Amino acid sequence: MHRAMDALQEANLAATACQELVVGEDAMEAAVRALLVGLGEDHRREGLRRTPKRVAKAFRDGTRGYKQNVKDIVQGALFPERGVDKRTGSAGGTGGQVVVRDIDHFSYCESCLLPFSIQCHVGYVPSGGRVVGLSKLSRVADVFAKRFQSPQRIANEVCSALHASIQPAGVAVAMQCWHIPLPENMKCKSSQVWIRTSHSSRSGVFEGENSSLWNDFVALLKLRGIDMEMDSHSHILPWCPLRPHEVPPCNGYAKRTTNDVTTSPKSGSTPSSMVSAVSSMLQSLGEDPLRKELVGSPQRYVQWLMRFRACNLDVKWNSFTLNSACVYERPVEDATDHGEIKSEMHLPFCAQCEHHLLPFYGVVHIGYFGNGDGKGIDRCTFQALVNFYGCKLQVQERMTRQIAEAVYSVSRRGAIVVVEANHICMISRGVEKIRSSTATIAVLGHFLTDSCASASFLQNIIPSTTHGGNKMEL
Amino acid sequence: MHRAMDALQEANLAATACQELVVGEDAMEAAVRALLVGLGEDHRREGLRRTPKRVAKAFRDGTRGYKQNVKDIVQGALFPERGVDKRTGSAGGTGGQVVVRDIDHFSYCESCLLPFSIQCHVGYVPSGGRVVGLSKLSRVADVFAKRFQSPQRIANEVCSALHASIQPAGVAVAMQCWHIPLPENMKCKSSQVWIRTSHSSRSGVFEGENSSLWNDFVALLKLRGIDMEMDSHSHILPWCPLRPHEVPPCNGYAKRTTNDVTTSPKSGSTPSSMVSAVSSMLQSLGEDPLRKELVGSPQRYVQWLMRFRACNLDVKWNSFTLNSACVYERPVEDATDHGEIKSEMHLPFCAQCEHHLLPFYGVVHIGYFGNGDGKGIDRCTFQALVNFYGCKLQVQERMTRQIAEAVYSVSRRGAIVVVEANHICMISRGVEKIRSSTATIAVLGHFLTDSCASASFLQNIIPSTTHGGNKMEL
Repeated sequence: MHRAMDALQEANLAATACQELVVGEDAMEAAVRALLVGLGEDHRREGLRRTPKRVAKAFRDGTRGYKQNVKDIVQGALFPERGVDKRTGSAGGTGGQVVVRDIDHFSYCESCLLPFSIQCHVGYVPSGGRVVGLSKLSRVADVFAKRFQSPQRIANEVCSALHASIQPAGVAVAMQCWHIPLPENMKCKSSQVWIRTSHSSRSGVFEGENSSLWNDFVALLKLRGIDMEMDSHSHILPWCPLRPHEVPPCNGYAKRTTNDVTTSPKSGSTPSSMVSAVSSMLQSLGEDPLRKELVGSPQRYVQWLMRFRACNLDVKWNSFTLNSACVYERPVEDATDHGEIKSEMHLPFCAQCEHHLLPFYGVVHIGYFGNGDGKGIDRCTFQALVNFYGCKLQVQERMTRQIAEAVYSVSRRGAIVVVEANHICMISRGVEKIRSSTATIAVLGHFLTDSCASASFLQNIIPSTTHGGNKMEL
Repeated sequence: MHRAMDALQEANLAATACQELVVGEDAMEAAVRALLVGLGEDHRREGLRRTPKRVAKAFRDGTRGYKQNVKDIVQGALFPERGVDKRTGSAGGTGGQVVVRDIDHFSYCESCLLPFSIQCHVGYVPSGGRVVGLSKLSRVADVFAKRFQSPQRIANEVCSALHASIQPAGVAVAMQCWHIPLPENMKCKSSQVWIRTSHSSRSGVFEGENSSLWNDFVALLKLRGIDMEMDSHSHILPWCPLRPHEVPPCNGYAKRTTNDVTTSPKSGSTPSSMVSAVSSMLQSLGEDPLRKELVGSPQRYVQWLMRFRACNLDVKWNSFTLNSACVYERPVEDATDHGEIKSEMHLPFCAQCEHHLLPFYGVVHIGYFGNGDGKGIDRCTFQALVNFYGCKLQVQERMTRQIAEAVYSVSRRGAIVVVEANHICMISRGVEKIRSSTATIAVLGHFLTDSCASASFLQNIIPSTTHGGNKMEL
């Protein structure tokens, strides 16, 4: 009863927030403000004050493809270039092709409105004695990536747009895409749970079962370690994790049941005012919220956001850990040289950046001094602590401090916490630093004065990525 | 005598081109046109027609840091955030720090005006109860990278600018930089010859031999595979290869002799009109060509460009290969299953992109049908062919075709050529697709009709990079 009233009150607040246009603000910003209120946040607090502006800008920038024109991009960048022979229709490169591999892009999933990552490879066989500037293949891919999309549609649209604008003998597009999983499915080996699919699209001379040009294209990708054949068996999971009942997509054109678009998330968890706010955002961005593929998407986006809803409960950490069920005898051989230092490494988390309403995710490493009785704190307890501070609108610095303080409150001799995270906001918008990764550290008690202790803890962290590996791993 | 006259004539032509301002064109574009003329090119031909506009834009964009203000970037992105304790001066994160690792940037070498690649890692210890938005660390680094620079100066300037604008307890900056080698030093394992240095700069609590915060910073970098200690011994080569007499820089502040800045390149190879054109470009970009570190740089840039000077000689490939010195007996075990297919893989090259006046570099793989006499063509002959077509203003598609046609002219049964390249223009400007790599293929003769033959050739190429590895490798 109380909960129903709370929900009603929040919905009203959100509706009001959505309607209240602050001077100089647009409808997008008001909608984001409604989402913040719906999440139980105070949208006037410092960290959130300019979040509506940032989120509106990010969405506008991230969907700029709606306003771009492929012909404008390609037209000025066609260069005359004789092919290896003069046979009609293939003068630019008979038997040859041009392939740009490993073009990184970001797009928005039309099913849940969250960003997903793309590694795109584009090939074409020049014709008519002209080639296109190499960077244009990337720019054209970007036009279709910067929309609300499905991976297969991007591949198809890039392929046909390039075919129409360059008029080559054929175009081949291959893509690997990664979708963020639900926070509760984030496991330590986070690279394993990112949902991956492969898609391709071809035209002209690349078409057909036995196209030798397609085979050459696949072989040229293999030289960069990209195995399209292996990939065709790699996506047994459904693509968008917020549509769990969806039929897994197949390689090439994704198969979908026609009913699944109407699968609506559980009601109750998605206040209708928030859903309307998201629909109005879609409209502001020039999209049609009634487009078949977008039906249900605002609900799913709100469903995702609600997982990060503000919680006013204080974590009962002290009494929790004193519960004997969560304290276990740690085998002696687990102790480090410093005897008393205990650690729990690579605890996974997924938080929501409060500045950009975009996920940041990674792992938490915790070190503390034991109480000399050989007893440690159970990993499940630490994971609960990480989940409590991680699964909300957050900033990494605060989360690190909060976990350190909580650990210190039960291990008064000292606590050290390292958080390593990838920030989607650093990757998908603005600075677009795809490989960047942020580490924060908070130190309390003995770890502050005993630099050997903290050094020993840091040395014991096993790197969870090989440098320069897949950007989705941490 | 003839050569002296030619040089004079070219100098005059270049000077004229530099003075002739086309309507709507600026001084930068006229200067680029003068460089094209100096290189013996027809600046009106299709591929070069808009090169001045592109190069001017790239230089302007690549040096935009001169016009940017760090305070503007940081000011709006300081967020109140309580630290783990309230001790004055370190409230934002006592004993803790925030580190963003693996930020990719590009800068221009002030010694030769060519771009170089940076991997930057920035850490700071918050103070005064406030943290800075993570992306701003990257944006501030960009302000100093986007200038004519030396690696150590970037590290120092980023460090002190962040210290002044965030007012933290301390700032740590670590960077790895890669400089392109001279084309003649490009070897097959190109990653080995890219000139690499490491630099660092620190302020506040990171300073001092025994700063535990610096040690933590180094430990957090190690989690990403970045070893600053190892790096401190890794740069025994001089940094800018166009200043061969320079004293190798040391880790931390680079030591330099004061005389080396006046080391001028050999005269004669650098027409003075081209040098003046480059000086005028520097001025247009807001730089002082008389700044100590830039003295001699226009000469060095012209020296670099002149390595790609147009050559009107036709390669005497037919007679060349018929020379018995270049034909050798190939051991039988080197033959593939198809018996007659011969190949020469991973022939390195460095060309100059004619659209952007920026290098593209990589490897060429050549396959051909033998003449049944067991004799093959020597690798040194193929390398000479690759150098001839590679070392000029080029586009990858044309270079691929030209090499294929040349091979076909002596091996009439069939030729297949694959060129794999990294384009600095794709990486350092515009689309900034750091990991992208372009492959082109040209096929002639039997390889066109026998798809098994071309497939077998492609399968025999050993990938020269692991996917997602260092961007400087191919």
